[in-house]
Amino acid sequence: MSESIIEQLKAAARAKQFLQQFAPDAKKATLEAIAAALVEEEALILHANKIDLDRMDDGDPKKDRLLLNSDRLQALSASVKQIADLADPTDQLLLKKILPNGLEIEKITVPLGVVGVIYESRPNVTIDVAALCIQSGNVCLLRGGSDAQYTNEALLRVIHRVLEAKGIPTDIVQLLPVARKHVSELLEATKYVDIIIPRGSQSLIDFVRENAKVPVIETGAGVCHTYVDKTADLEMAAKIVANAKISRPSVCNSLDTVLVDKEVAPEFLVKLAPYFENASVEVFADPIAYKLLAHQKFSNLVAAEEADFGREFLDLKCSIKTVNGLDEALEHIEKYSSKHSECIVSSHELTIERFLNAVDAAAVYANASTRFTDGGEFGLGAEIGISTQKLHARGPFALEKLVTEKWIVRGNGQIR
Amino acid sequence: MSESIIEQLKAAARAKQFLQQFAPDAKKATLEAIAAALVEEEALILHANKIDLDRMDDGDPKKDRLLLNSDRLQALSASVKQIADLADPTDQLLLKKILPNGLEIEKITVPLGVVGVIYESRPNVTIDVAALCIQSGNVCLLRGGSDAQYTNEALLRVIHRVLEAKGIPTDIVQLLPVARKHVSELLEATKYVDIIIPRGSQSLIDFVRENAKVPVIETGAGVCHTYVDKTADLEMAAKIVANAKISRPSVCNSLDTVLVDKEVAPEFLVKLAPYFENASVEVFADPIAYKLLAHQKFSNLVAAEEADFGREFLDLKCSIKTVNGLDEALEHIEKYSSKHSECIVSSHELTIERFLNAVDAAAVYANASTRFTDGGEFGLGAEIGISTQKLHARGPFALEKLVTEKWIVRGNGQIR
Repeated sequence: MSESIIEQLKAAARAKQFLQQFAPDAKKATLEAIAAALVEEEALILHANKIDLDRMDDGDPKKDRLLLNSDRLQALSASVKQIADLADPTDQLLLKKILPNGLEIEKITVPLGVVGVIYESRPNVTIDVAALCIQSGNVCLLRGGSDAQYTNEALLRVIHRVLEAKGIPTDIVQLLPVARKHVSELLEATKYVDIIIPRGSQSLIDFVRENAKVPVIETGAGVCHTYVDKTADLEMAAKIVANAKISRPSVCNSLDTVLVDKEVAPEFLVKLAPYFENASVEVFADPIAYKLLAHQKFSNLVAAEEADFGREFLDLKCSIKTVNGLDEALEHIEKYSSKHSECIVSSHELTIERFLNAVDAAAVYANASTRFTDGGEFGLGAEIGISTQKLHARGPFALEKLVTEKWIVRGNGQIR
Repeated sequence: MSESIIEQLKAAARAKQFLQQFAPDAKKATLEAIAAALVEEEALILHANKIDLDRMDDGDPKKDRLLLNSDRLQALSASVKQIADLADPTDQLLLKKILPNGLEIEKITVPLGVVGVIYESRPNVTIDVAALCIQSGNVCLLRGGSDAQYTNEALLRVIHRVLEAKGIPTDIVQLLPVARKHVSELLEATKYVDIIIPRGSQSLIDFVRENAKVPVIETGAGVCHTYVDKTADLEMAAKIVANAKISRPSVCNSLDTVLVDKEVAPEFLVKLAPYFENASVEVFADPIAYKLLAHQKFSNLVAAEEADFGREFLDLKCSIKTVNGLDEALEHIEKYSSKHSECIVSSHELTIERFLNAVDAAAVYANASTRFTDGGEFGLGAEIGISTQKLHARGPFALEKLVTEKWIVRGNGQIR
């Protein structure tokens, strides 16, 4: 085991030099070759993946996340091809002006530099991050989980073979050793690393935020609300709420709390209950909603406690609260939202605009499922996560945000 | 003395509501009224300023920074008027598209929310920050130094009278109590404060970075180099270097190290020495430069040590190193730069472009003084500082960056 990752960090700094002259066409060709190699090298990759899977307990829920097969490799390859087709986010002219003194000022986008990513057992992160970093001209340092060590090493071998064949320094994509102590080294390497992105459980994200000296971009929890206004099309509202909760409960853009206007709560819950009943959703209801659902003999019904609001369930569970109109809904959201995705279902224009304007969140919706908060759905391509912070990137954190700005000033002797 | 600033933080959250409907015209009128009031209320402000000045030791170097007089109030007023004339950075449409499923997606700019600023004795920060936050629709929480307490209170009184007269909640601009313990409260108030900006000494900035739980935007040190290429117009190079060092040595965009190609070092130093001699600049020279300057009988000459490179002097001091061409200059800059402002003086196009491309800094210059790195000079208006970080804002951190993004999604029942 290596004593330190310092040689890898130095190699990353050297590799940055190459990326300065990595032209858009060459990036695209490289990604297309990687996409092809992922399919061609299926045997090598699945062999390594099997070693990792065999080391894991059969009952471990991480096993499915770690698993690769032909279909999943095809999907990974397709994702790389999609990234190759996205516009190069670097060297974009953001501003250009000539000052009265003759100075020519430009602001352009440039790569961030060296991007460190710390993640857990999903091998798709290895590929997505490598592809996003190549397309945005960044060096990436990948620190995956030990569960996926053999799989990640095989994926890196595939990527490195492509880079070597093209005469590109393989150090632009590096896998870091899995030993715990190297994580701290990475988090403190301000001289070598420009940004760190944690991907995975809340405890991983918290650990990184607490310990990093390098700047961090956080992708946070989603406590998502849908407010059903008294003017809502209640059939539509029930479909939207059901989709937001049921289609994929384990992800951050899934619904956690339904707020419904008291005036329409009885009729709305009659329409919603069958969807939730069919999917075995457990409901934590406030007293009014409880009474209404109990009357319908709804199965998985619990009286909500304070802690059931502002709770990210990540499961087939959901809290329901009845409110007196928009103001109470806005107050509830202001108090409990994690500022990820929030929705109103309404047919009244002014109410909709007030909601969209007043709610402070990365994404605000009218009459659609919050499940759409996603880089792919928004047309940005693969994403590194959904940012709930306000600086640099908010919402889907995708290719376009893997850059920083640079001011370029050209003169002919100007002094101040 | 108040026990806690929690009531002020809650008031800030309430005041945010008002700012949602604060129209561009109303912002402009408010700032113009504040600009007028700063001049009209000269007596009140200077009286309070005198109380602060009288509390300070005569020899204290902070005294000049704290001092207000008619001229300085006029300048402050003019600065507020300038900010009123800048384009409102909020509600800008960054992206709009309609997805195949009919969803209408917009990305717009919105205020950050509540901005906390921790600063030292300059009362102009109070006015600049308040004006920038009003124009960008942010609530600001000002925590100035205790030295300037009476002055800041008087400035706030002037601002609040204007706000009251216009029926605007005064809580959109708040002064926090000066007691130390409230700084920690502010730094940890993630529920109420969206961003904290420290302005002042390196130790203040370090303290904020180490202790803040709220996201911080840092304005950092400037270790600025100017490289004199062998093709440079040496007369121009001497003027640029002299200006970058001498015009205002105490600021972050002033020059710290001259790198000069060995081929032209003798001739260049002959041209530079008189400027530095006249201004009594102390030079820390590498062996070759030392020999050349000693030969010219340069007065303030010291043999450079390793620590004199990568050092931010903030004074009439400067290090000089002779190099073998562009590559050695780039290596030196990569090693010692704080990524603020870096310059090349050259008449060779390819050399210039290689330098501008290769150097990783917020601002890179060809043939002009690094002293231009400034929000006002770049046409952005008053700035909060120069950011040397890569996330969110890089270079002058001005009005345009006091915003975040918001995704707005309008549908008619779309589910995923």
